[in-house]
Amino acid sequence: MKVAFIGLGNMGSAMARNLLRAGHDLAVYNRTRRAADPLEKDGARVAASAREAAVGAEVLVTMLADDAAVEAVIFGDRGAIEGLARGAVHASMSTISHALSRRLAAEHGTRGQLYVAAPVFGRPDAAAAGKLTIVAAGPAEAIDRCRPLFEVMGQALEILGDDAPQANVVKIGGNFLLASAIETLGEAFALVRKHGIDPARFLEIVNGRLVRSPVYENYGAIIAHQRFQPPGFKLRHGLKDMRLALAAGDEVDAPLPIAGLVRDHYLSAMAWGWADIDWAGLAKVSAVEAGLEQAREGPGATIAGGVKAGAGAPSR
Amino acid sequence: MKVAFIGLGNMGSAMARNLLRAGHDLAVYNRTRRAADPLEKDGARVAASAREAAVGAEVLVTMLADDAAVEAVIFGDRGAIEGLARGAVHASMSTISHALSRRLAAEHGTRGQLYVAAPVFGRPDAAAAGKLTIVAAGPAEAIDRCRPLFEVMGQALEILGDDAPQANVVKIGGNFLLASAIETLGEAFALVRKHGIDPARFLEIVNGRLVRSPVYENYGAIIAHQRFQPPGFKLRHGLKDMRLALAAGDEVDAPLPIAGLVRDHYLSAMAWGWADIDWAGLAKVSAVEAGLEQAREGPGATIAGGVKAGAGAPSR
Amino acid sequence: MKVAFIGLGNMGSAMARNLLRAGHDLAVYNRTRRAADPLEKDGARVAASAREAAVGAEVLVTMLADDAAVEAVIFGDRGAIEGLARGAVHASMSTISHALSRRLAAEHGTRGQLYVAAPVFGRPDAAAAGKLTIVAAGPAEAIDRCRPLFEVMGQALEILGDDAPQANVVKIGGNFLLASAIETLGEAFALVRKHGIDPARFLEIVNGRLVRSPVYENYGAIIAHQRFQPPGFKLRHGLKDMRLALAAGDEVDAPLPIAGLVRDHYLSAMAWGWADIDWAGLAKVSAVEAGLEQAREGPGATIAGGVKAGAGAPSR
Amino acid sequence: MKVAFIGLGNMGSAMARNLLRAGHDLAVYNRTRRAADPLEKDGARVAASAREAAVGAEVLVTMLADDAAVEAVIFGDRGAIEGLARGAVHASMSTISHALSRRLAAEHGTRGQLYVAAPVFGRPDAAAAGKLTIVAAGPAEAIDRCRPLFEVMGQALEILGDDAPQANVVKIGGNFLLASAIETLGEAFALVRKHGIDPARFLEIVNGRLVRSPVYENYGAIIAHQRFQPPGFKLRHGLKDMRLALAAGDEVDAPLPIAGLVRDHYLSAMAWGWADIDWAGLAKVSAVEAGLEQAREGPGATIAGGVKAGAGAPSR
Repeated sequence: MKVAFIGLGNMGSAMARNLLRAGHDLAVYNRTRRAADPLEKDGARVAASAREAAVGAEVLVTMLADDAAVEAVIFGDRGAIEGLARGAVHASMSTISHALSRRLAAEHGTRGQLYVAAPVFGRPDAAAAGKLTIVAAGPAEAIDRCRPLFEVMGQALEILGDDAPQANVVKIGGNFLLASAIETLGEAFALVRKHGIDPARFLEIVNGRLVRSPVYENYGAIIAHQRFQPPGFKLRHGLKDMRLALAAGDEVDAPLPIAGLVRDHYLSAMAWGWADIDWAGLAKVSAVEAGLEQAREGPGATIAGGVKAGAGAPSR
Repeated sequence: MKVAFIGLGNMGSAMARNLLRAGHDLAVYNRTRRAADPLEKDGARVAASAREAAVGAEVLVTMLADDAAVEAVIFGDRGAIEGLARGAVHASMSTISHALSRRLAAEHGTRGQLYVAAPVFGRPDAAAAGKLTIVAAGPAEAIDRCRPLFEVMGQALEILGDDAPQANVVKIGGNFLLASAIETLGEAFALVRKHGIDPARFLEIVNGRLVRSPVYENYGAIIAHQRFQPPGFKLRHGLKDMRLALAAGDEVDAPLPIAGLVRDHYLSAMAWGWADIDWAGLAKVSAVEAGLEQAREGPGATIAGGVKAGAGAPSR
Repeated sequence: MKVAFIGLGNMGSAMARNLLRAGHDLAVYNRTRRAADPLEKDGARVAASAREAAVGAEVLVTMLADDAAVEAVIFGDRGAIEGLARGAVHASMSTISHALSRRLAAEHGTRGQLYVAAPVFGRPDAAAAGKLTIVAAGPAEAIDRCRPLFEVMGQALEILGDDAPQANVVKIGGNFLLASAIETLGEAFALVRKHGIDPARFLEIVNGRLVRSPVYENYGAIIAHQRFQPPGFKLRHGLKDMRLALAAGDEVDAPLPIAGLVRDHYLSAMAWGWADIDWAGLAKVSAVEAGLEQAREGPGATIAGGVKAGAGAPSR
Repeated sequence: MKVAFIGLGNMGSAMARNLLRAGHDLAVYNRTRRAADPLEKDGARVAASAREAAVGAEVLVTMLADDAAVEAVIFGDRGAIEGLARGAVHASMSTISHALSRRLAAEHGTRGQLYVAAPVFGRPDAAAAGKLTIVAAGPAEAIDRCRPLFEVMGQALEILGDDAPQANVVKIGGNFLLASAIETLGEAFALVRKHGIDPARFLEIVNGRLVRSPVYENYGAIIAHQRFQPPGFKLRHGLKDMRLALAAGDEVDAPLPIAGLVRDHYLSAMAWGWADIDWAGLAKVSAVEAGLEQAREGPGATIAGGVKAGAGAPSR
């Protein structure tokens, strides 16, 4: 199938490579050209713009960092929406906001293009192994069109219905569950440590006998053994996802107090210079609040405006 | 073994029955005599006071609702501590505060008695099946003495060390993890419902593919299908356990913001008359806060003091 | 002075009228034409577009509901920024985000226009009486240019410096202080009511003897006597301002947990259909949470997307 | 009048001295004898026990640190309740829990003694100047009996009714209002500082023009100028009062989320070694959370139980 693939970070590169290996015809685009080199060697055509990548594609896949990146690539100058043919499908696989997903559905609709929201659960290793879980929503025919691609990239496909943005809500809700579990582990570990109990032992008992979740197992181990480097998923992206959860709640008048609390803790982690450790580093904030660990002063008071625009921009 | 068993609620009765069946010699005591009748038929001797039950026992087991009940039965008028012989063991299996457990360790110590904290994870059906998880801490010899009993009541014994109150912290920390998971599910379900998504479907995806925990599975199903009656564990006891968690944190200067938030939601649930539904009913509070469900005005403004002493007392 | 005045709600109309009375030459614009009629009778020229209003003005004043309204009027189709002359000043007096204020400063700057952020404290009656407090920041010469107008609209002018968006932060921080005081009163009143104490009496003692603030006095009276209609400042706008506070904190990695909590309570108030009562109605949420008052189910589950776009739009 | 005065800290000593100066006949008692020396020189009789002080007194005044101190002095070994005559009055002026106040009312009642709860607002300097605000509740005749004393110690007497514990709720609610205002200032100051705005300037505008409260003025100045030493009211006591507020809410099913949040921040302050700075030091926690200031690791992990009993005890 002729596929345009935009966004070649850790996740996107692995997914694109799997598509190539399965014999699909790929045009790729990435904001920084260099990230496309390995895929070019593997047989992908490297486009000079998002628009160019989209021309002639049956399916356009986007796998980007956040709303702003998707907006730039789709609606920006030489954006993909201008190149995509009528009847072609845009499968948006990034974790983006419900609001942007709704806008994408509408804008593609007015151009006779099809839109599928298909965010994924899984880390880069799952992406490389083609073992992602894909949650898809959108017109049935469009999902069917993407199915051969989804089967290459993921091992599980959950179809939600025809209202595309619902898939984004499920993805956001899922990350909210994970972040909440991490926060809870962080608080519980701080509690038991101050009572002189080894958190790994606590985890062994409570998860081993009761919760029995690989998520608690994995994140619990990361936290108990303080293995926040290298990050599997960066803390700054965890913060982004809490913002998405709060925005999704705000839109429908649903308060999410735990998401607010986690957001606050992520902000402190940012202020303490921990933007690029694993998002399980959230647990360090509870350790600091209990006096078990030391918080750093920020890397200079983060000043809004001019300074921040420079210094802070890459961190969001 | 000669065993005194105090506290014959749903949990205690099932545990005592298993001890009887295994051939142990039981003296039982319960504040309301009637609860002891079935065990009497099964061969237990019914004592007229906690003190009387304790006389001659090698091991005294307590399985009571809360700190106040344990204090009354141990330190109160004709309390068990007066009857228990030097060298005998008190195995406190209730979920009680770290502070009371510490006091029990000290008071038994001054009388030459031994003290083991051995709280359990598991619901009444697990108690009946002898499948509890028991978390024990205290002097090794005392735990060894209790081992034949623990093996009858539970299928797993986790020994934590010789500082008895640590077992209570692990139990409290475990219930904090569960309550936090319930709260998170409640918030996430409110979010997805307002976005038109079936919470059971959401759970199927996120727990089925990601969290994979029987705890999320079970509580998620209870919440998604609104099965809060009959309660497996009453909401008022969930509130009690959040109070224990907060107290355990307070003692060592460890803030537990999620526990505070869950406590607040349980208080609202109490104010709305939901004290006796399952503690997963916590999720109803998030549904109310999102406008999906109706809160009740309290059963008359709960007034402190005189009125409350009467009306409210049984609810704690 | 030749003035363009855009935004003729309760606040804007009163401010514009004072400018007219002081002899200034006004061109006014409002999205719905009808709101301009009374000012037209008083001598204002009614422009057909924001752009037209701005042409020829020495100072452009905007007094609009939120960021979206300011963006539409300034940057939208036939927006004011196209009509405003080089060297003319835009005094933005609305409560808008720090981020938008920064963008306005930049965009006006590239066009050789001057920009002053000059948000106000005060309700419609203060606006009518010319007794607003104006907090201004921006280039000194631009503030000087606006001074004759500010003196007519306000009784106090606080100049903050030359970084315009700082004035927005002060305004947002001020409203955060007010909302926090209202939330606190709401919680305290719920507490004392449940203990059988008249909240008005509590307020009399605590504010009368201790806090001695007219803000506590006024909002306390509104809450104690449940006078939420007609609204002095609508609850939906209180929610908006908490969003601004959280966004201002987010931008610089400063968590504001009270703002998060107040936001959540405002969201519940929205879900319960209280968008258009006074923002002191926040206190009703604490009353509901304590079982003193009944929450309503939402006016139909607020559904995101299509339905919401229609039904919910006016409520934001 | 024959008065027994128990509790000679900063507040109590000043109040007792005023009673002496007004010509009353004082028997004083303090746990550490030395604190009584200055009053002895001024003419007070120093009793060897609380019981002894109470014998013969028409009114017994207690002014102690917390519930535990009051319980020890009244109900403990050689406690005042044994010495107090039938018909004599106990005026409890400490900030104690609603629950203890209710118990005091009941216990005095069964002995034919009268009980008045009469907590005070005001710092040591106000106590020295006889300018406290006294909030009294209890039987009218008992309050009347105390009136000559209250008039010497305070400049304002607010009588609440005949249900004594209500006075404690008002006092607790008042301190909740103050702590909440301090927390809000701390958060707002962190926000404006990170945006490059001087908090003193922010306070000048927002309190000067809007809130106009001496409480905001004073605490705002303490925070803006970081004057947390010497403490006017110690942070550990601020924490104690939040515990009282939460307990008062818990008793009647009234969640107080701001009190929970403030409690959490006070716990972090304790963990960071700030127990003995002014309670306005709460604001430092917000500064730490925003990366503006450095948190300290605790003075060794606070370990519960044995170690804590020694090391931690003085900090509560």
